[in-house]
Amino acid sequence: MNSSAFHPPRRTLMGPGPSDVNPRILEAMSRPTIGHLDPAFIEMMDEVKALLRYAFQTDYALAMPISAPGSAGMEACFVNLVEPGEKVVVCINGVFGGRMRENVERCGGVPVVVEDAWGRAVDPDKVEATLAAHPDARILAFVHAETSTGARSDARTLAEIARAHDCLTLVDAVTSLGGSELRVGEWGLDAVYSGTQKCLSCVPGLSPVTFSERALEKVRRRKTKVQSWFLDLNLVLGYWEGGGKRTYHHTAPVNTLYALHEALILLREEGIERAWARHAYHHRALRAGLEAMGLRFVVPEAERLPQLNAVAIPEGVDDATVRSRLLADYDLEIGAGLGVLAGKVWRIGLMGYACNRRNVLFCLGALDAVLTDLGAKIESGAAVPAAMAWYAAHPD
Amino acid sequence: MNSSAFHPPRRTLMGPGPSDVNPRILEAMSRPTIGHLDPAFIEMMDEVKALLRYAFQTDYALAMPISAPGSAGMEACFVNLVEPGEKVVVCINGVFGGRMRENVERCGGVPVVVEDAWGRAVDPDKVEATLAAHPDARILAFVHAETSTGARSDARTLAEIARAHDCLTLVDAVTSLGGSELRVGEWGLDAVYSGTQKCLSCVPGLSPVTFSERALEKVRRRKTKVQSWFLDLNLVLGYWEGGGKRTYHHTAPVNTLYALHEALILLREEGIERAWARHAYHHRALRAGLEAMGLRFVVPEAERLPQLNAVAIPEGVDDATVRSRLLADYDLEIGAGLGVLAGKVWRIGLMGYACNRRNVLFCLGALDAVLTDLGAKIESGAAVPAAMAWYAAHPD
Repeated sequence: MNSSAFHPPRRTLMGPGPSDVNPRILEAMSRPTIGHLDPAFIEMMDEVKALLRYAFQTDYALAMPISAPGSAGMEACFVNLVEPGEKVVVCINGVFGGRMRENVERCGGVPVVVEDAWGRAVDPDKVEATLAAHPDARILAFVHAETSTGARSDARTLAEIARAHDCLTLVDAVTSLGGSELRVGEWGLDAVYSGTQKCLSCVPGLSPVTFSERALEKVRRRKTKVQSWFLDLNLVLGYWEGGGKRTYHHTAPVNTLYALHEALILLREEGIERAWARHAYHHRALRAGLEAMGLRFVVPEAERLPQLNAVAIPEGVDDATVRSRLLADYDLEIGAGLGVLAGKVWRIGLMGYACNRRNVLFCLGALDAVLTDLGAKIESGAAVPAAMAWYAAHPD
Repeated sequence: MNSSAFHPPRRTLMGPGPSDVNPRILEAMSRPTIGHLDPAFIEMMDEVKALLRYAFQTDYALAMPISAPGSAGMEACFVNLVEPGEKVVVCINGVFGGRMRENVERCGGVPVVVEDAWGRAVDPDKVEATLAAHPDARILAFVHAETSTGARSDARTLAEIARAHDCLTLVDAVTSLGGSELRVGEWGLDAVYSGTQKCLSCVPGLSPVTFSERALEKVRRRKTKVQSWFLDLNLVLGYWEGGGKRTYHHTAPVNTLYALHEALILLREEGIERAWARHAYHHRALRAGLEAMGLRFVVPEAERLPQLNAVAIPEGVDDATVRSRLLADYDLEIGAGLGVLAGKVWRIGLMGYACNRRNVLFCLGALDAVLTDLGAKIESGAAVPAAMAWYAAHPD
């Protein structure tokens, strides 16, 4: 075994996340570790909670990061809210909806599935019909921004329908937080989880969550214990809440929380609506380039997430070859397809710090060069000029 | 909300962890993030696995970090190994044994408790008798190094007893890994979890685990699904194993893994037996100082962990006052008591990078000064000279 210090290659991260991390965040993370019960740290935790409320656009008391990646955030929502035997309506239009169903089952819940095509938004009419047919369901779970396809569902409308049927909403906002409009409070979403490594441009490893008062009430009224000790909010909140009196639960990932704190300050500095607008802006330039090249988007325009662009791989082109070439020759990472879309699409992320003009042009240029070199049927050389023209016509 | 960049105070961390992090680790962690499926990252993951085998002193195929803190590592062991209705013998001699029982219950298992006094090792005779009385138990769970008391149990003997009763061992090595003798392979421990923020001196946030082949076999033979999707080893291993073909499960905490990689390289550079010896060495100097001051250890000498020194708080002295003064006046963190020992003991850590002569003398000097200032009945001024004398009599 001859391992020595690891010096990562310098990539440009334009896949589904992690996205390029702002150097300010990396620097903040490398500050000396202090104790997880240090008064200075607890003050910082309170700032993280306030900053998360801003990022989620809510005033819910509970806004905090779970000390593990997004999938653990998803699990935290399900294990706390679902009791054995309870019916949960789960919308599936991609990988992460499917994972939600898995979570319901592993909690001993009974999933009722609303299915939509991969690449499409969740259909509110189907949800309405399903909730009407299952009046005993008390939770509607759906993915706001499907990371596997780039489809955006109408969270506001789905939440209205859920409320009309006396259901809580459990929402995956992993890819939307900080990247496109998400108004947890105004829309009345009840349990929302996200990730740090997407549009917040932070390192991966934490999952911000927020719960409405009525969601928390359901957790408090449980008849059974939460099956996960690590994710039991009744215990976790003893550490994250409680004024001056914090109870040790687990050792918080101190330095990663420094990173999240800095990422959230960056978001507040930019302003969340400006951040949303920036994602939409560069997405349109990228789209101009991709379409000029002849690539086709998987998701209809009205349902598209600006931060995650899924495009069909041109016929006769080998997925892995192209991604390997981009990585080897350009240090550029784009994402592969997942699930039924594996081998059929690429996912080009424009997330957070990575969402900028330089990356748009660089990505289009590199993709054009590699595809041209492989003899793919594309409009060679058209992508970059098209994006440049779009930028020229739409000053920032 | 007026939060701005967080600049942590510069502490000396001599509590139960996190311990002072080696600057080489902080620097490694701050290198640019790359993708969790990047071939360069996967190569580093393979190195982490090999380095973990060295740290655990084992050749088990499964040695990897869970992407969350130690309590999630504990939960990973229980949810994978315990099926509903299964009997698990759990040894409780402190907080973390109690947490093990909680985990068994939340998995639907049936805990059979072997209780020992807080501050004492687990009694092998009681374990033997309990396993004999419960021949249907298939798992013996115990804490090798009780972080709440500083007691070390005889893991080798307990594992022998377990094997004689056809039981797997499930072992908490959070505080022992890298700090005192732990030979997972030679002792035949079956499922072992640890933390990064103790004697590895890494940032908190990961939980290294290792499983023997027979433990893995039990996971593979399960009749029921693992209740946690996030911690299901059948899925997690698709990402951490599988040669060139890794399956996405969750987004790994990339930068924290850079940190662990560097921490493990540091351990290998020093040599694990030298690291164990260093902890024992400075512990003896610290002990000389604490005893000269008149403080009494909670744990009998033969059962004491060098890296975690629990001492009784002198009569009439207020726990919180002393710890606050140490923090405010000396930027020194020592640990409070937990559970039944809260307010009664301090826990002085000598872990990893923080385990050195400077810290021993600094801690003794600061504690002496604060206790003297508060009028405590101690041998004022005796601690530092006693430790100095010990060092002089025992050249490194």
